[in-house]
Amino acid sequence: MKTIAILAGDGIGPEVTAEARRILEALNLDITFEEGAIGYAGYVAAGHPLPPATWELAKRADAILFGAVGDPRGDALDRALRPEQAILGLRKQLGLFANLRPATLFPGLEDASALRPEVAREIDMVILRELTGDVYFGEKGLRTTADGKREGYDVMSYNEEEVRRIAVVGFEMAKRRKNKLCSVDKANVLETSQLWRDVVIELSKDYPEVALTHMYVDNAAMQLVRNPGQFDVIVTGNLFGDILSDQASMCAGSIGMLPSASLRAWSGDNGLYEPIHGSAPDIAGQGKANPCATILSAAMLLRHSLDLHDEAARVEAAVSAALKGGARTADLGGTMTTAAMGDAVLAAL
Amino acid sequence: MKTIAILAGDGIGPEVTAEARRILEALNLDITFEEGAIGYAGYVAAGHPLPPATWELAKRADAILFGAVGDPRGDALDRALRPEQAILGLRKQLGLFANLRPATLFPGLEDASALRPEVAREIDMVILRELTGDVYFGEKGLRTTADGKREGYDVMSYNEEEVRRIAVVGFEMAKRRKNKLCSVDKANVLETSQLWRDVVIELSKDYPEVALTHMYVDNAAMQLVRNPGQFDVIVTGNLFGDILSDQASMCAGSIGMLPSASLRAWSGDNGLYEPIHGSAPDIAGQGKANPCATILSAAMLLRHSLDLHDEAARVEAAVSAALKGGARTADLGGTMTTAAMGDAVLAAL
Ligand SMILES: CC(C)[C@H](C(=O)O)[C@@H](O)C(=O)O
Ligand SMILES: CC(C)[C@H](C(=O)O)[C@@H](O)C(=O)O
Repeated sequence: MKTIAILAGDGIGPEVTAEARRILEALNLDITFEEGAIGYAGYVAAGHPLPPATWELAKRADAILFGAVGDPRGDALDRALRPEQAILGLRKQLGLFANLRPATLFPGLEDASALRPEVAREIDMVILRELTGDVYFGEKGLRTTADGKREGYDVMSYNEEEVRRIAVVGFEMAKRRKNKLCSVDKANVLETSQLWRDVVIELSKDYPEVALTHMYVDNAAMQLVRNPGQFDVIVTGNLFGDILSDQASMCAGSIGMLPSASLRAWSGDNGLYEPIHGSAPDIAGQGKANPCATILSAAMLLRHSLDLHDEAARVEAAVSAALKGGARTADLGGTMTTAAMGDAVLAAL
Repeated sequence: MKTIAILAGDGIGPEVTAEARRILEALNLDITFEEGAIGYAGYVAAGHPLPPATWELAKRADAILFGAVGDPRGDALDRALRPEQAILGLRKQLGLFANLRPATLFPGLEDASALRPEVAREIDMVILRELTGDVYFGEKGLRTTADGKREGYDVMSYNEEEVRRIAVVGFEMAKRRKNKLCSVDKANVLETSQLWRDVVIELSKDYPEVALTHMYVDNAAMQLVRNPGQFDVIVTGNLFGDILSDQASMCAGSIGMLPSASLRAWSGDNGLYEPIHGSAPDIAGQGKANPCATILSAAMLLRHSLDLHDEAARVEAAVSAALKGGARTADLGGTMTTAAMGDAVLAAL
C-alpha cells in the first residue's frame, strides 16, 4: 500500500488536484490518499504555509501530488510566512534538486500556441532545472549602504557537487533520448555560471556519446522562440530554469497542459509532482482551470515514484484522446469546466 | 562640430557599423568620426579589451556607435581581459544606467517572426533595462566551501537610488507613450526584487496618471510569447532585462532589426548606441549580417544624443522603405549582403 500526499494549496490548486485524484482512483491501484494544508491555506488553517503536520505527511508519503501556492493576501506577510515559502521549503528540505519539465505540443493543440503551427509542432524537449540552489537559497536580505540607503541583496552560488549531480541527470536523460544536451548559463558575466560550465565540461568526458552544447541564457530565450525544435534536453540553474521553462511551456501551447516532476535522484522515491502553472487567483473557484497539467503530473508520479509505467502511459493516452475528441477548457479556446475536462479524460481512460 | 566614436569591435561589428557610418555620412551633418579598437580586437591591438586610447575617446565623444564584442578566442582569457568586459566597463564607467530597447515589428516582416502574424503585429513596446547594477556588477568570484569544494558566487543587489532613477525613466517614458508601465521582478523569491518593487510603488505616487502593474519574470517570459501586445513600457533589472529583451526581439521578427540606446539620464549626452545582437562569429566577415539594427541605433543616436529628431525619423523611414521595397538579408529570409542592404537604405534616404 502506497501513500500519496495531496497538497492542493491555493487558488485553482484544489480544483485541479481533485480531478487528478479522480483519475488516479479510477486506476484501482493499491494507494491511499492523504490531504495536507499548504500555502496560504496552510497559513490560514495552522498559522504557517508549511504546517508541521503537512511536513510530516510529505516526508512519510511515497510521493506528493502538489497543486499550487500563492495568494495576494499572502503578499503582505513576512517573507517567512508567505505561501511561496511552502514549496521552496519542500523542495529544499526534501532535497528535490532535479526538476523535470517536459514541453511537448499535444497533437491538435497547434492552435493554442502563439507560435506558427509549423514551429510549435517541432517542440519536444525536457527542461531540467536545478531546484535547490542558486540565488533562490543563498543569503539574502535588506541592508543599509554606507550612505544610508536601503539595499536589497541575494547571493547567487553553486558549488561543484551541486552542479555535477544535476548535470549527471542531464547526461543520463540525454542518453535515453537523442544524445543531445544543451547547458544554459551566463558564463560571460557570472562566476557561478563559469563554474557551472567548467563542471559540465569536466563531466562530459564520461559521456562521449552525448553531444554537449553551451548557450547563454539570453540567446536561449531567443532560440526558444525562433527555433524551439533544435532543443532536446536543456539543463540549467534554478533561476534561468524558472524563466525558460515557463517560456517554453507557452511555446508548446497552454501552460495549462504542462506537468513537472521534482526528484532527489534518478529514482523518484518521495518525488513531488506539480503542474508548472501557478495558483491563478483570478480564476480560482470558477471551474475554469485546465486540470490536464495536474493529471499529467499524476502520470509522471506513477512512472517515476511508483514504477507504474503502463498506468502512466494509459493516463497520458487518455489526456491525448480527450483532446483529440475536442475537449477544451478556456485556456485552449474551449468552454469546458475543470470537472467536465476531468470527465472527458476519465471517459477516455 | 560633434564627435562620434565608432567602436566596431568583433565578429560582424565592423561590417554593420560601416553601413551605419555610410548612412550618417550621407546626411551631411557637422560630425567627425573617430574609430577605436575594442573587445577581442582591442586585446589584440593593445593588450586590453578596452584600451586606454579607446576609453579616452569614449569619454570625449558626444556619442558612441558600438558594434559588438565577443570572440571564441577570448573565452580562455582571464575574465578581466575578456571581450565582454569592454562593454560592461563602458556601461559602468560612463554611468549608462538606462538601456532603451524598443521592439516593434516592421511592416512587411510578419513572416520573419516565429509568432503567428496576428500576434507579432501587435508588438510595440520598449524594454527599459537597468544597465549598471544587479548581479552583473556585484562582488563575484570562486571560493572554496568548508568541505573543500569549488564554489562560484555572484552577489545580486540594488539600492533604492539605483531603482528610483531607472524607474523615473520608466514613468517618464510611459507618460509620453500610453501611460502604462509594467515592472518585472521576482519579488516572491528575491529580496533585491522586493526592494525594487517597494521603490517602484513609492515612486508611483508621483505619477498618478500612469497605470503601474507588476509581473514576475517567469510569467513575463510567458506573456511575451502568449500576448506581447499587452505590453507598452517594461522596466526591469539588468539580468531579467538581458533575457527578456532578447526574447522580445525575436518575437518582433529578427534580432538583426533591433537597436538600443544606453543613456545616463533622460538627456542622452554621451550615450552609447548598439544593435542588440552580438558579434555572431559564425557569420563574421561573410557579408551576411543585417546592418539594420546598427543603422536604427544610429537613428537613436541622432535623436537622443544630437537632438536631430527629423534626421532620426528620416533614417528610420529609409529603413522602413527599403524593407517595403523587398530588401532582405539572410536573417529575414533574403539573400542580400550587408553592403547591399546598406545601399538599399541609402537609396531610400
Ligand atoms: C512560486 C515560485 C516560488 C516558483 C519558483 O519560482 O520556483 C514557481 O514560479 C515555479 O516555477 O515553481
Ligand atoms: C555581451 C554581454 C555581456 C551583454 C550583456 O549580457 O549585457 C549582451 O548580452 C547584451 O545584452 O548587451
